[in-house]
Amino acid sequence: MATTAISSGKLRGIMKLADASGRFKMMAIDQRGSMVTALADVLSIEKTDVKYDDVASLKTLITRILAPNATAILTDPIYGHPYSITEIPRDVALLLAYEESGYVSEGVAENERLSNPIENWTIAKAQRAGADAIKLLAYYHPDASEATLKHQQAFVKHVGDECEKQDIPFLLELVSYAFEGTTKSLEFAKQKPDLVIRSVQEFTDPSYKVDILKLEFPADLKYTDEYKDSAFYAGASAYDLSEVNDICEKLDGTSTLPWVILSAGVDIEEFIENVKLATAAGASGFLCGRAIWKKVFEYYPDISAVTEFLENEATANFHNSNEAAGIALPWFEHRQFGGAENIQLAKQSENWVQDY
Amino acid sequence: MATTAISSGKLRGIMKLADASGRFKMMAIDQRGSMVTALADVLSIEKTDVKYDDVASLKTLITRILAPNATAILTDPIYGHPYSITEIPRDVALLLAYEESGYVSEGVAENERLSNPIENWTIAKAQRAGADAIKLLAYYHPDASEATLKHQQAFVKHVGDECEKQDIPFLLELVSYAFEGTTKSLEFAKQKPDLVIRSVQEFTDPSYKVDILKLEFPADLKYTDEYKDSAFYAGASAYDLSEVNDICEKLDGTSTLPWVILSAGVDIEEFIENVKLATAAGASGFLCGRAIWKKVFEYYPDISAVTEFLENEATANFHNSNEAAGIALPWFEHRQFGGAENIQLAKQSENWVQDY
Repeated sequence: MATTAISSGKLRGIMKLADASGRFKMMAIDQRGSMVTALADVLSIEKTDVKYDDVASLKTLITRILAPNATAILTDPIYGHPYSITEIPRDVALLLAYEESGYVSEGVAENERLSNPIENWTIAKAQRAGADAIKLLAYYHPDASEATLKHQQAFVKHVGDECEKQDIPFLLELVSYAFEGTTKSLEFAKQKPDLVIRSVQEFTDPSYKVDILKLEFPADLKYTDEYKDSAFYAGASAYDLSEVNDICEKLDGTSTLPWVILSAGVDIEEFIENVKLATAAGASGFLCGRAIWKKVFEYYPDISAVTEFLENEATANFHNSNEAAGIALPWFEHRQFGGAENIQLAKQSENWVQDY
Repeated sequence: MATTAISSGKLRGIMKLADASGRFKMMAIDQRGSMVTALADVLSIEKTDVKYDDVASLKTLITRILAPNATAILTDPIYGHPYSITEIPRDVALLLAYEESGYVSEGVAENERLSNPIENWTIAKAQRAGADAIKLLAYYHPDASEATLKHQQAFVKHVGDECEKQDIPFLLELVSYAFEGTTKSLEFAKQKPDLVIRSVQEFTDPSYKVDILKLEFPADLKYTDEYKDSAFYAGASAYDLSEVNDICEKLDGTSTLPWVILSAGVDIEEFIENVKLATAAGASGFLCGRAIWKKVFEYYPDISAVTEFLENEATANFHNSNEAAGIALPWFEHRQFGGAENIQLAKQSENWVQDY
């Protein structure tokens, strides 16, 4: 196998995101819209009345207690980073989010989603601030209108170009959605494998310059026959487990890049199953937020109860997730690289300084 | 005490350079000129005949075996970084050297020294390449001619400005020298405290924007009375131990910045004493190269003997140095900061993204 050359900043950044064995065990605490909604719900107030300080404080607390279990923390530069920077241990890498939370649908079909950047936030700024990698969430439905597809593709390309320029790893998160109804349905469960895999087909194109994909589980175990007896089973099946395994294998076959699984707020029991199935198929780990810590909202605003939950149950959730990812494929073993021994610094030579 | 605000990139970078308790246990392998000279000596060849690959390979080997003991590795972008990047563990920070090895004396008095940058190498490049901090070595003699002083001061200022712009920690190494004769003399031992302390006075001026100082031990234990029975004693005394302690205290009193001790190639026994005395006086650790690994040249080119030395004696040297630095002052306890609880992100607010 030919050696694979990786540029200096990307190589060092990817090494930091993973553990020493090359497996990603990363936590997301970059939620903004969903966290404001959850706090509004538990406090029985309007979303616009949720205080900035309350969101920032809760993020800081979650980061402080859980970050030591992670190989990397993904946070946002609005509520997260300015207050939790000192809570991320020196040996836990820092991923900063690039996109504005949520999406807009103006100018395109009502149920289509456009992602946008945070105002005044750039990849170069994130790098100066200490980010080891950039995360971009892009909503994507491969059957959206041409205008929506073009917008999302251009947005991803822009981030890919800027990350290349700054030589910082680009982690792209793809989130599918339903044109009609909800993603929590038998019908969507049936569509999901196709949506996820076709999205991966699009964004593994080298023109997007993505380094790592953060993907939804490509099926829905709530609608999988073998999980009939689990608490999360939704009462109907879209597939059986062998079909789900085939879907995961197909996803892995499609992804020419290392990929990790996201949790999309499912319960921890379901997430652990997702991690096991995904890593068995070739995923390199996870980047998980709510599945680990979402029960904080059951205890909020009782901070001591929140703290106790984080120190015990959430920490156990993290340990169990890490254990489930024990069989994850080290990123450098992905067929793109073919093993640590095949990886070499791009432009490696005595003229590296001049050529870099 | 008022809170001290540190910008995001500098804060995160400094945290990475130190261990979790705030103590710096860093290794230097950025030697170029001195390593070429040493290899020429042991191979009995001209310096110009020393092969690039041999220097790069030896640096890679030293880095591979010793880096796991360090909180940070300082390497150079010529022989070091391009080949050893994958040998630095994910949780060991990366310091890259900015200056060209050695010095020039053209255009100034014969025995004065001017430091210069590596051609085509910039702070921004180093940051993109993955550096967590920048190291600059500046030769400095406070009694040099005005032209030399101005050149060195302007050089340091340039790096300070660029590091501020890129928001990356700036570690300044100051090395004194003798106008006449050698630094290995009783006469120089007597001058050294004054030279080191006056240099620190100069470069702690806020206009240089230095974050951490890498300093010579401000006296010379080879000429200290109490070390008469040690192998390194030079046969005459410039001071006794209580005077050396006073000198260290005076240095610490002068340094308004956290400082670490360098080894300047002394034997490990002397270096350990340096670390003990310096950290007792307020140093925050060390950044040490040759004292730990210089005996490789006794075994070179027998790579298996070099490897055995590194795995055993050099590793023990590192452990002993780390132990000696156990009482180092955590950087955030330096009076500049006054404790972790007083440190806060600069521009910390919900508008951080806009203001940063």
